[in-house]
Amino acid sequence: MDLSIIGYDPVGAWMKTAGTAEELLSYRNPSGITWINVEGIGNKLDIVKLAENYKIHPLTVEDIMDTEQRPKAEEFDDYIFITFKAVNRNRTSEEGTNIFEQMSLVLMESTVITFQEIPGDSFNGIRKRILNNAGRIRKMGTDYLAYAIMDAIVDDYFLVLDKLGSSIEDFEDRAVDERDDNFIRDLQGVKQSLLHVRRIVWPLRDSLSMILHLESKFIEPELEPFFKDVHDAVIQAAETVESYRELIAGVMEVRLSMMSHRMNSVMKVLTIISTIFIPLTFIVGVYGMNFRFMPEIEMRYAYPIVWGVMILIVAGMLIVFKRRHWM
Amino acid sequence: MDLSIIGYDPVGAWMKTAGTAEELLSYRNPSGITWINVEGIGNKLDIVKLAENYKIHPLTVEDIMDTEQRPKAEEFDDYIFITFKAVNRNRTSEEGTNIFEQMSLVLMESTVITFQEIPGDSFNGIRKRILNNAGRIRKMGTDYLAYAIMDAIVDDYFLVLDKLGSSIEDFEDRAVDERDDNFIRDLQGVKQSLLHVRRIVWPLRDSLSMILHLESKFIEPELEPFFKDVHDAVIQAAETVESYRELIAGVMEVRLSMMSHRMNSVMKVLTIISTIFIPLTFIVGVYGMNFRFMPEIEMRYAYPIVWGVMILIVAGMLIVFKRRHWM
Amino acid sequence: MDLSIIGYDPVGAWMKTAGTAEELLSYRNPSGITWINVEGIGNKLDIVKLAENYKIHPLTVEDIMDTEQRPKAEEFDDYIFITFKAVNRNRTSEEGTNIFEQMSLVLMESTVITFQEIPGDSFNGIRKRILNNAGRIRKMGTDYLAYAIMDAIVDDYFLVLDKLGSSIEDFEDRAVDERDDNFIRDLQGVKQSLLHVRRIVWPLRDSLSMILHLESKFIEPELEPFFKDVHDAVIQAAETVESYRELIAGVMEVRLSMMSHRMNSVMKVLTIISTIFIPLTFIVGVYGMNFRFMPEIEMRYAYPIVWGVMILIVAGMLIVFKRRHWM
Amino acid sequence: MDLSIIGYDPVGAWMKTAGTAEELLSYRNPSGITWINVEGIGNKLDIVKLAENYKIHPLTVEDIMDTEQRPKAEEFDDYIFITFKAVNRNRTSEEGTNIFEQMSLVLMESTVITFQEIPGDSFNGIRKRILNNAGRIRKMGTDYLAYAIMDAIVDDYFLVLDKLGSSIEDFEDRAVDERDDNFIRDLQGVKQSLLHVRRIVWPLRDSLSMILHLESKFIEPELEPFFKDVHDAVIQAAETVESYRELIAGVMEVRLSMMSHRMNSVMKVLTIISTIFIPLTFIVGVYGMNFRFMPEIEMRYAYPIVWGVMILIVAGMLIVFKRRHWM
Amino acid sequence: MDLSIIGYDPVGAWMKTAGTAEELLSYRNPSGITWINVEGIGNKLDIVKLAENYKIHPLTVEDIMDTEQRPKAEEFDDYIFITFKAVNRNRTSEEGTNIFEQMSLVLMESTVITFQEIPGDSFNGIRKRILNNAGRIRKMGTDYLAYAIMDAIVDDYFLVLDKLGSSIEDFEDRAVDERDDNFIRDLQGVKQSLLHVRRIVWPLRDSLSMILHLESKFIEPELEPFFKDVHDAVIQAAETVESYRELIAGVMEVRLSMMSHRMNSVMKVLTIISTIFIPLTFIVGVYGMNFRFMPEIEMRYAYPIVWGVMILIVAGMLIVFKRRHWM
Ligand SMILES: [Mg+2]
Ligand SMILES: [Mg+2]
Ligand SMILES: [Mg+2]
Ligand SMILES: [Mg+2]
Ligand SMILES: [Mg+2]
Ligand SMILES: [Mg+2]
Ligand SMILES: [Mg+2]
Ligand SMILES: [Mg+2]
Ligand SMILES: [Mg+2]
Ligand SMILES: [Mg+2]
Ligand SMILES: [Mg+2]
Ligand SMILES: [Mg+2]
Ligand SMILES: [Mg+2]
Ligand SMILES: [Mg+2]
Ligand SMILES: [Mg+2]
Ligand SMILES: [Mg+2]
Ligand SMILES: [Mg+2]
Ligand SMILES: [Mg+2]
Ligand SMILES: [Mg+2]
Ligand SMILES: [Mg+2]
Ligand SMILES: [Mg+2]
Ligand SMILES: [Mg+2]
Ligand SMILES: [Mg+2]
Ligand SMILES: [Mg+2]
Ligand SMILES: [Mg+2]
Ligand SMILES: [Mg+2]
Ligand SMILES: [Mg+2]
Ligand SMILES: [Mg+2]
Ligand SMILES: [Mg+2]
Ligand SMILES: [Mg+2]
Ligand SMILES: [Mg+2]
Repeated sequence: MDLSIIGYDPVGAWMKTAGTAEELLSYRNPSGITWINVEGIGNKLDIVKLAENYKIHPLTVEDIMDTEQRPKAEEFDDYIFITFKAVNRNRTSEEGTNIFEQMSLVLMESTVITFQEIPGDSFNGIRKRILNNAGRIRKMGTDYLAYAIMDAIVDDYFLVLDKLGSSIEDFEDRAVDERDDNFIRDLQGVKQSLLHVRRIVWPLRDSLSMILHLESKFIEPELEPFFKDVHDAVIQAAETVESYRELIAGVMEVRLSMMSHRMNSVMKVLTIISTIFIPLTFIVGVYGMNFRFMPEIEMRYAYPIVWGVMILIVAGMLIVFKRRHWM
Repeated sequence: MDLSIIGYDPVGAWMKTAGTAEELLSYRNPSGITWINVEGIGNKLDIVKLAENYKIHPLTVEDIMDTEQRPKAEEFDDYIFITFKAVNRNRTSEEGTNIFEQMSLVLMESTVITFQEIPGDSFNGIRKRILNNAGRIRKMGTDYLAYAIMDAIVDDYFLVLDKLGSSIEDFEDRAVDERDDNFIRDLQGVKQSLLHVRRIVWPLRDSLSMILHLESKFIEPELEPFFKDVHDAVIQAAETVESYRELIAGVMEVRLSMMSHRMNSVMKVLTIISTIFIPLTFIVGVYGMNFRFMPEIEMRYAYPIVWGVMILIVAGMLIVFKRRHWM
Repeated sequence: MDLSIIGYDPVGAWMKTAGTAEELLSYRNPSGITWINVEGIGNKLDIVKLAENYKIHPLTVEDIMDTEQRPKAEEFDDYIFITFKAVNRNRTSEEGTNIFEQMSLVLMESTVITFQEIPGDSFNGIRKRILNNAGRIRKMGTDYLAYAIMDAIVDDYFLVLDKLGSSIEDFEDRAVDERDDNFIRDLQGVKQSLLHVRRIVWPLRDSLSMILHLESKFIEPELEPFFKDVHDAVIQAAETVESYRELIAGVMEVRLSMMSHRMNSVMKVLTIISTIFIPLTFIVGVYGMNFRFMPEIEMRYAYPIVWGVMILIVAGMLIVFKRRHWM
Repeated sequence: MDLSIIGYDPVGAWMKTAGTAEELLSYRNPSGITWINVEGIGNKLDIVKLAENYKIHPLTVEDIMDTEQRPKAEEFDDYIFITFKAVNRNRTSEEGTNIFEQMSLVLMESTVITFQEIPGDSFNGIRKRILNNAGRIRKMGTDYLAYAIMDAIVDDYFLVLDKLGSSIEDFEDRAVDERDDNFIRDLQGVKQSLLHVRRIVWPLRDSLSMILHLESKFIEPELEPFFKDVHDAVIQAAETVESYRELIAGVMEVRLSMMSHRMNSVMKVLTIISTIFIPLTFIVGVYGMNFRFMPEIEMRYAYPIVWGVMILIVAGMLIVFKRRHWM
Repeated sequence: MDLSIIGYDPVGAWMKTAGTAEELLSYRNPSGITWINVEGIGNKLDIVKLAENYKIHPLTVEDIMDTEQRPKAEEFDDYIFITFKAVNRNRTSEEGTNIFEQMSLVLMESTVITFQEIPGDSFNGIRKRILNNAGRIRKMGTDYLAYAIMDAIVDDYFLVLDKLGSSIEDFEDRAVDERDDNFIRDLQGVKQSLLHVRRIVWPLRDSLSMILHLESKFIEPELEPFFKDVHDAVIQAAETVESYRELIAGVMEVRLSMMSHRMNSVMKVLTIISTIFIPLTFIVGVYGMNFRFMPEIEMRYAYPIVWGVMILIVAGMLIVFKRRHWM
C-alpha cells in the first residue's frame, strides 16, 4: 500500500509519501487543504485506522474495499462519499483492452481522501498544478480538488471509447470478408467491453446528478458549473456508448446479410449446374441402354442430332436463368 | 413448525425453542429486544394465534402464508411488514439450481418476527453475534436486527448469481461445439433461472426504496446508511442480472452464427462435389451411348483426349472455387 | 336483464330479485347498505332510469354500456366509478379459453351498484357472507363491499393465468416434436390470450393505484390495507403475465433452434450421400464408355482394382466426415 | 375556402355561409356562442384577417396552415389552441386507406373557430343538435362545443381502427397461403398505416392530458368529465393500436414459420429422392462397365439378384426415413 | 476566423466585419442590441479575449471550442449558454450527406454571441430582416434574436430529414431488386445518418424544454410562445426520425423476406429437376447393364415400354408438384 499526502493553501504546497497509516497521520496541515491518496486497498488494518481518524462510517470502509462495488455517491454527516471506476493507465488485459479499477473519494471540509485499487493513476497533472500553483486550484477548496480528480478520470473514459470506436470501424471492413471465421466472436468481445463501460458510466451519471441536486455544505454554489461539466462529459460518454451499440448492430446486420447472400449464391451455382447436366445425363443414359430393338441406335445422324438437342436444351435453360437473374 | 425466540439487551441474551405458539408466547422479554423466528408456515392456527397476540392484520397473515406472494413492504400502525424470497441453504432442485423460499419479517418497536417457508436459514451468524455480544448488534434496536437479517439474505443472492455466472461462462465454450445438441435447451434453463432471480430482486429493490423514503418510528435515522447499503446490494444484484442477460444474448448470437456458418460449409462441400462431378459424369455418359455411327469411338487417342478434357475442366473449376474462396 | 338487490346492516340482511328497474326501485333500505346487481346491459332504458334515480352521470352510463371500454376508475361528486373485466364463470370460447365480460361498479355512500355484461358471476361467496353474517362484511360499509367484489374478480384472474401457465408447459414438450405442424399457430393463440389478459390487468393496476391515492369520502382510511391487497394481487397478475411472456419467448427459441438443427441434419445426410456416390458413379461411367482403344478394359484385374479404388475413396471420405463431426 | 358561421344561445340558433373572411366578419352574435368553421387553409390572407380580428397569435396562424404540424395543445392569454388530425370522410387514398387531414380548434370565451385542411367533415350531427336544440348543447358554453367537436373526431378514429383490425384478420388467413407472394409487402402497408394512426393518437393523448391539468378560464370545472371521456377514448385508441401491432407481429411470426417449414419440406423431398436413387444409379453403373473380365456379368441369376439387392436397399432407407419422421 | 458584428435598435442598424477580437471589440453599440457572429473556432486566443470581455466562464469557452460537445443549455449568472448542431449549407460529405457543425449561442441582456465551427450559415435571412427592418425583429430584444437564430437552424433539420425521407423511399423500390448487392450496406448508411440526426435532435429537445422551464431574466414571458414553437419543431423532427426508423425497419423486413422467398424458389427448381430426372436416370442405367441374362433386353417392345413408364412417372410427379404448389 502506497500512501501519499499533499498539503496546500494559496501560499504554499508540500507532498510526502508514507508506508503506513500511522506514519501518514503524523503529517498535519493545520490551515489549508489536505489530499491523501491511498494506492492499493488490500491492507484492511491501515484503511480502518485512517477511517477511524477521519470518522468514516464502517459501511463506507466496506464499500471502499469492495472492488465489485457499483459506482454511487452518498452523503454522510461528515463527508460526501463517491465511488466509481477509473481506467488503469499502467495495465491492459491480454487482449489489449483496458482494465478498470475501483476508485473511491471522500470529500470533507478541508480534506480529500482518494482510494485506488491498483497503484498508478492519471493524477500527475493535478499534482503538478498544485505544487507549481498553476491555474486556480491552490486558491480553491476541497470541492474543486474533487472536481479536478473526477474530471481527470472521466477524460480517460474517452480514451477507452475512442479505442473501441476505431475497433468497431475495423469490423465494418471485416464484415464483408467471408473467410473471417472469428468475426462474430471478436465482435462479441467488443460488444461486451462496451457493455462493461456502460455499466461503469450509467451509475456514475446518476451519482453526479445526485451530487448536483445535493445542497451540501461540502460543495460551494460556485462549484456547480464544474460538477455540471463532469456530469455533461459522463452523459456524452453514455451517448457515445449508445451510438457505438447502434454501429455494432449495423455491422452485425451487414455481416448476416453478407452470409445469407453468399449462401444464396452457392445455392444458385449448385442449382444451375444440376439443372443443366441432370437432364443431359438422362438423355445420354437413354442411348446407353442395351435393348436389341432401338431404332435410333442404327440411324445415320442420330449421334449429331442428340448433340443438337442437348445444345438446344442448354441454350433454353441459360435463357431462363438469365431472365430470372440467376446468372 | 419450529419456533425459536431470542431475547437480548446490551447486558445479556438468551434463546429458547418451542413447538407451539402457546408455548412460545409464555416466554417474555420485558425490557430488551425479542426476535421470534417461525420455520414452516403450514400451521395456520399457530400463526393466527401469534398474529393476534402481536396485533398483526389478517391481510398480513394471508401474505405471510402465501408462498406465491411477490416481494413487498407495507407500513401498518403497529409494525412494518416486509416479505421477500430467501435462498434456501439446505436444498437444491434436481438440476442443482437453488431453491428460493418465502420469507416474511414483521418489524415492531421491540420485537422482530420472521417467518420462513422451509426450516433452515442463513441466520446462524446473526444468532452468534447476539449470543456472544459480537459487534454492535446487542446495543442496537429492532431496526438493526431487521437490517442484519436482510443483509444476510441479500448476500446469499450473490452466491446464486456467482453460480449462474460461472455456468454462463461454460456456455461460452459450448457455443462452438457443434455436436452439443442440448445447448439451446440448457441455455434456456439458465436464462429462466436468471429471470426468476430477477423477479425476486426487482420488487425487493422497490420495497427497500420505499422503506428508505418512509419516515417511520420503527426505523431510527441513524439506521439509514445500513438500509441504503442493503438497497445498494440489491441494485448491484439487479445490474448483475442484466449484465448476465446481455452475456447470454451474446452467447446465443455466437451459437447461431456458428450453426449458420456450419450450414454454409456443408452446402459448399455439396456444391463443390456436385459441380465437379456432374459435368464429368455427363461426358462419360456421352461415350457410353451405343449409336452405331459415332466417329470418336473409333479414334485411336479418343480415350486419353477425353481424360485430358476432363482434367482441364476440373482444374478450371478448382481455380474458380479458389477465387470465390469456397475452398 | 336480471336485477337483484341486497340490503343489510349489522343486525339483518335480505335479498330480492326484480325484472325491471321500476320494480327494483320500489325496494328501499332506509338505514343500512344496499347492493344492486344488474346482469345484462342491453336494456338502455332501464339502466338510464336506475342511473337517474342514483344521479349517475350520462357519461358513466355510456361507459357502463360500452363493452369495449378499457378498465378505469373515476371520481365524481356523488360516487366513485370503476369499470374493469371479469372472467365469466359460465361460458368459455370454442377453443376452451376464458371469456371476459365488462363489469362496472358504482360506489356511493350507502349503495353499491354492479353492472355485468353477462348473467352469472363469482359473487355467491359474498352473498352468502352477507346473508349468513359470516366474517366482518355486515359490520363494514360500502367500501368494504366494493373491496370484496374486486377481490373476488381479481382472484379469478389467477384461474385464467394458471390455465395459461400449464398450457405453456405443454408447449415446452411440444417444442421438440418435429411433426407438430400447428405448434407456432397454437403458441400464437396462447400468446394472444396472454396479451388479452395483459390489456385487462395493466389499466386495472393504474385504476387501483389511482383509488389508493384518492382521498375520497367514500373510502375510509381503515380500508386502505384492503385496497392495497387487491392492488398487490393485480401487480402479481401483471408480473405473472410478463414471466409467461418470457417463457413463451424461450419456448419459441427452443422451437426455432430445433427446426434449424433438423434442417442442418437433413442437409448433412444429403451431402454425405451425394459426396460419396457422385464420384463413384463418375468412375463406373468412365468404364462404361465404348471407345475401341481403352487399355484398362482388357486388363485381367481391372475390375477388382476399380472396386478397390472405390472402396478406398469411400473410406477416405468417411474419415473426413467423422473428423468434421458430420456423422 | 368555404366559411360557415353558427350563432346560438339557449333561446335560438342561426347559420350562415360566407366566401371571404370580410363577409364572415360582418355576421355578429352579440350575446351567445359563435362557431366559425373554415374549410380549406390555402388562403393565407383570409386566415390572417380572421386571426387579427380574434387576436390570434401569428405563430398559431403558422401552425394552423402547416399541414405537417403534429397534434398539440397550447394555452394563450386569449384562447386555447388545439391542433390534431381528423379522418376525412369524403376521400380515401388509392389503396382504400383513410386520409387524415389537419384540423385546428381555437377555443375562446364565447367563440370557437375550427380550421379544416379539406372541405367536408363529421360535424353534421353537432350542427343538427345546435339548430334543433337537441340535448344539452344549446345550454352549454364554448367548452362543451369544443368537447363535442373533439368527441366526433375521435369517434372517427375507431372507424379507421376497425378497418385496420379486420384487414389484420385477413392476414391471419393469408399467412398460411404459400403462393401469396405479396404477403409481406401488403402487411407492411397495414403496419405503416397503423404507425401513422399511432403518430396521430399519441401526441393527442398528451395534449388532452395537458388540457385536463390546465386550470383555464375557458373550460368550466363541470366540463372535466367530458374532456376526461375524450381523453379516455384516445387512450383506448392508443391501446388498440398497440394490440394490433402485437397481432401483426404474431401474424408475421406465423408467416415466417410457415415459410421455413415449407423450405424444410422441400429439402426433405430432395434428400429422400437423392438418397434413394443416387446409390442405385451407382450400382447399375457398375454393371454397365465394359471390362472384359467381370465374373458377375456371366452369372445366370445376376440380374434378378441385383434387383433384389436394390429393393433391399430402398426398403432399408424407407425404414430409416420413417424413423426420422421424414416421411 | 471571420468575425462580424451587427448593432441595431428600433431606429437603425449597422453591420461591420473584423479579423481579430481586438478589432471587433472596438465597435460599440451603447444603447441597442449587439449580435456578434464568430465563424471558425480554431483561434483559442481570440475566443478567450472575447470571452473575458463578456465575462464568459472558462468552462463555456471549453464547450464552445469542443466540436464533439453534445447539445445542451446552461444558465449562468450573466448569460444563457446554448450549444447545438447546425446543418452546414456550404459543404456535404463525399456520399452527398449533410455535414453538421458545432454551433454555440451566448444570450445576454443586450448582446448575442454566436460561434460557428465552419464559416457560412443560414442567417442571411435574419441579417436582412435586421438591416431592412422587416417584421418585428428590430423592435424586440436579444431573446427574440436568439429565437430567430434557433428557428433558422431547426428549419434546416427538415431539409436533411426530407432528403433522408426520399432516399428511404428509393429503398422501398430497391428492396425487391434481387441483383442489388449493396442494398443492406447502403441502407445501413441511411440508418446511421438518421441515428446521427437523432443524437443531434434529442438533446436539443431536452435543452429547449429546460429553457422553457427556466424563469430567466434574459427571456421575457412574451417570448414563451416563440421558444415553444422551436421546441415543437424539434419534437416534430424527433418524431420524423422515429417514423423513418420504422420505415427502414419495414423496408428491411421486405428485403429479408424477398431474399428468403427467392432462396425458396431456387431450392424448388433444384428439387423439381432432381426429383424428375434422378429416377429416370436410374431406369436407363438399369438397361445399360451388360448382364448376359437380362430377358427385357431381348423383348420386341421393351424400349417403347420403358419410354412409356418414364413418361408416366414424369406425369405423376408433375401432378404431385402442382398439388403442392411448387410449380
Ligand atoms: Mg456496501
Ligand atoms: Mg459488477
Ligand atoms: Mg490506480
Ligand atoms: Mg473535462
Ligand atoms: Mg439510470
Ligand atoms: Mg468534453
Ligand atoms: Mg395479500
Ligand atoms: Mg411469482
Ligand atoms: Mg428457511
Ligand atoms: Mg452486505
Ligand atoms: Mg421497478
Ligand atoms: Mg457489497
Ligand atoms: Mg366514455
Ligand atoms: Mg379493447
Ligand atoms: Mg356476469
Ligand atoms: Mg385476494
Ligand atoms: Mg401503466
Ligand atoms: Mg395473493
Ligand atoms: Mg409552429
Ligand atoms: Mg409528420
Ligand atoms: Mg374536413
Ligand atoms: Mg365519444
Ligand atoms: Mg408521449
Ligand atoms: Mg367510447
Ligand atoms: Mg412504447
Ligand atoms: Mg465541458
Ligand atoms: Mg458524438
Ligand atoms: Mg457555419
Ligand atoms: Mg420555424
Ligand atoms: Mg432525452
Ligand atoms: Mg413547423
